[in-house]
Amino acid sequence: VALRPIVFFRREDGAVVALEDRCPHRFAPPSLGRLVGDHVQCGYHGLEFDVEGRCAKNPHGPCLDRMQVRAFPTVERYDLIWVWPGDPAGADPDRIPDLSHLYCDGRRTRFQHLEADYRYDILVDNLMDLSHTGYLHRESAGGPAQERATTIRDEGDVVVVEDVNLRQPPPSAFGPDGPLTDIRVITRWHPGNVIPFDAESVPSGEPLGAGHHLRFTHICTPSTASGTHYFFSLTRDADDDEAGDGASDEYQRGVVVDEDSPMLSAINRVMAGRELMDMQPVLLPTDRAGLRVRRAIDRLIAAEQRAGVDDERVRI
Amino acid sequence: VALRPIVFFRREDGAVVALEDRCPHRFAPPSLGRLVGDHVQCGYHGLEFDVEGRCAKNPHGPCLDRMQVRAFPTVERYDLIWVWPGDPAGADPDRIPDLSHLYCDGRRTRFQHLEADYRYDILVDNLMDLSHTGYLHRESAGGPAQERATTIRDEGDVVVVEDVNLRQPPPSAFGPDGPLTDIRVITRWHPGNVIPFDAESVPSGEPLGAGHHLRFTHICTPSTASGTHYFFSLTRDADDDEAGDGASDEYQRGVVVDEDSPMLSAINRVMAGRELMDMQPVLLPTDRAGLRVRRAIDRLIAAEQRAGVDDERVRI
Amino acid sequence: VALRPIVFFRREDGAVVALEDRCPHRFAPPSLGRLVGDHVQCGYHGLEFDVEGRCAKNPHGPCLDRMQVRAFPTVERYDLIWVWPGDPAGADPDRIPDLSHLYCDGRRTRFQHLEADYRYDILVDNLMDLSHTGYLHRESAGGPAQERATTIRDEGDVVVVEDVNLRQPPPSAFGPDGPLTDIRVITRWHPGNVIPFDAESVPSGEPLGAGHHLRFTHICTPSTASGTHYFFSLTRDADDDEAGDGASDEYQRGVVVDEDSPMLSAINRVMAGRELMDMQPVLLPTDRAGLRVRRAIDRLIAAEQRAGVDDERVRI
Repeated sequence: VALRPIVFFRREDGAVVALEDRCPHRFAPPSLGRLVGDHVQCGYHGLEFDVEGRCAKNPHGPCLDRMQVRAFPTVERYDLIWVWPGDPAGADPDRIPDLSHLYCDGRRTRFQHLEADYRYDILVDNLMDLSHTGYLHRESAGGPAQERATTIRDEGDVVVVEDVNLRQPPPSAFGPDGPLTDIRVITRWHPGNVIPFDAESVPSGEPLGAGHHLRFTHICTPSTASGTHYFFSLTRDADDDEAGDGASDEYQRGVVVDEDSPMLSAINRVMAGRELMDMQPVLLPTDRAGLRVRRAIDRLIAAEQRAGVDDERVRI
Repeated sequence: VALRPIVFFRREDGAVVALEDRCPHRFAPPSLGRLVGDHVQCGYHGLEFDVEGRCAKNPHGPCLDRMQVRAFPTVERYDLIWVWPGDPAGADPDRIPDLSHLYCDGRRTRFQHLEADYRYDILVDNLMDLSHTGYLHRESAGGPAQERATTIRDEGDVVVVEDVNLRQPPPSAFGPDGPLTDIRVITRWHPGNVIPFDAESVPSGEPLGAGHHLRFTHICTPSTASGTHYFFSLTRDADDDEAGDGASDEYQRGVVVDEDSPMLSAINRVMAGRELMDMQPVLLPTDRAGLRVRRAIDRLIAAEQRAGVDDERVRI
Repeated sequence: VALRPIVFFRREDGAVVALEDRCPHRFAPPSLGRLVGDHVQCGYHGLEFDVEGRCAKNPHGPCLDRMQVRAFPTVERYDLIWVWPGDPAGADPDRIPDLSHLYCDGRRTRFQHLEADYRYDILVDNLMDLSHTGYLHRESAGGPAQERATTIRDEGDVVVVEDVNLRQPPPSAFGPDGPLTDIRVITRWHPGNVIPFDAESVPSGEPLGAGHHLRFTHICTPSTASGTHYFFSLTRDADDDEAGDGASDEYQRGVVVDEDSPMLSAINRVMAGRELMDMQPVLLPTDRAGLRVRRAIDRLIAAEQRAGVDDERVRI
């Protein structure tokens, strides 16, 4: 797996630039250099690159075509920087998933981040199969529902899962006779491993559709061959409830850091870089959505390869 | 080298169960789960395995034959758990070495443990050749004996070494004119790398056979491709001498941790996972017992392979 | 890359001995043993080796020819130990570079040392191309000169670079209008990666040849496949200026540790053990001296190989 570090900087007009962080001369990372206007100057021998990655100044001779670094199209949206690592001609801001729920009126979003020591697909599998909630998250979210139904559908490149959990026991702190809940979670996997959840809950037996919503957003960006930049956030319907931010952060951090991560790290160690299907897992019906995502990724990679984009760009 | 982590747990009746610590579904370690009666429940998606490793409950569908983990026969004896990693049909508690000296009347045993960063065979070679004592342990045990004689014999699968050291100088703290000692050590290597020493010492010139005994017991269980669970103990003829425990612990820990381990760690780094004979060592007569052990291990592995047991099981 | 650790010790007459630090019996490092007169005794089983690496005592049997370790010719000069790892017959103290400037009357040298986490050739390239000074060392040494001229020549196996920098701005602490300087640096690469600089500076416009000299000496000895023992020193014309030692040390340490090392470590991570030319760098005119050094090293290795010296000896 070839890693392609990226250096980010802002132009003087504020726009974000993303360049390959590897000078073609001696392979120094320009991120160790400095900005000279809208150029990034390599800190080793002073070559400067413009926002297109072209050598704009070579203090030691002429600028040649070969003296360039890759430039990646970027868009800044939802306070996130979206980078297109494929064929630049194919960059299309309209393909950025709709995450407008992050900033709606009447809502409040808290962002968090984890440098996870497990591969992105182990995390995506976790997010695409919520049947683990009743076991791995039994302390925070409650035990397994008495009745579960899952439907899966594709919407173009998006994989949509609708999970209905009926009569789910409350977290253990409520005791054995706590109130049961009905929960519906709609999960959407978007290419780029952007995975928002829309979770609605009602007291068991009341109609779904008029319940309380929590919106969890997960972005799983590969960082190394075995690690992931894991961005996660929780949006609640309470835009002026600053006092609740601490509890919100603590809750989501507990689920992600204390409950999911030790398990996913352990699995990452066992898998040791091997591909899931090569290890001949015993598959369950609950694996369907994760497998559909794997097929979607394979399909997108194959399409890029047919278009002549080399594999290295896509897999990071 | 394939590592096979094992999860241990006790049944409600107290018996110890040893299962492969790798769920066949998504490869989570059941050791991160919890016990439900005599079942271990995987903490990720709730699959339960019984004491035979069979899937006893699948919350997401039927239990299938493929949903199983390996179960290893175990016996608890001498406060140790003995695991049989080979063909379960061949598990025979009578093959557990006699370590009854650990708990005899009139004796007192102190147990210790080290997670050693050297491969088990480097440790076994050390234990099977006590000619190193006069050099590596000169501070704690005294310099080289003036006369040494070693006899080696096989007793079935057991390799027995009898070392007689005549006129061994005392530890250096006694000064250059300290009293000389005659020492006889009987070493027994048992399959599984269980290696008790029976060491008898007398003032030099007095008859061996009526001297003071110290019994050292060493168990060298591979932990990783380059590490060892090193269990060691010292049994002395003083069952009510609680006051002497500290000195006993300190003495054996000094020999193992301060003297042997830095040397064996350094050798492990130099060997870097290579096999001893591939490195073409210059062999000495004192290497005979260690080489005999290597042949015994090869013979046992070959016998298992002929019987159709795959190699992975035996080498850990 | 095969690492050949070396144990150094002094004979009773004070001469330095360098032996391969790997006992041929069980591969213990004799450096963990002790000296017995002019012999080094392996600390594991007591084999003793003389200053020629021959087994001089085997407590467990006869000394055989095979029981030897490699001995490396050494010379102690300039307070440094010079080791010849090639064919011993070719060891020639006259090939040790002249570093007499380190101890001249009227001069004062301060030695420092860094265990660098980058490969020796990444460091040598840095030292052979001072065009990086105006960028990587702009804080400590000043920005890029307004005019630069470099001449390169071979003197036998020595690569000599003469850099003239005219109108170099001062370090940034002087402010934007600080005085300009003319600087001439003569760099000599000697086999063994011994690289002294003679740097002369004058106020810009005054004649070079009568200026102030600083002599920097760099020795880049590979330590591991990706690390370097980096010895560096600064000699100034002030033999009684003890009070200036602290500032001298701090200055050179700042240049080496704070400025060069983070960049070279980053490059080492990007290169990940690959050879420079295999990565198809875009070369600049300023790379000429470094490339000439690479050719000189290749030439010396080829000559040794033709002479039947195995490659392992030369590359460390």
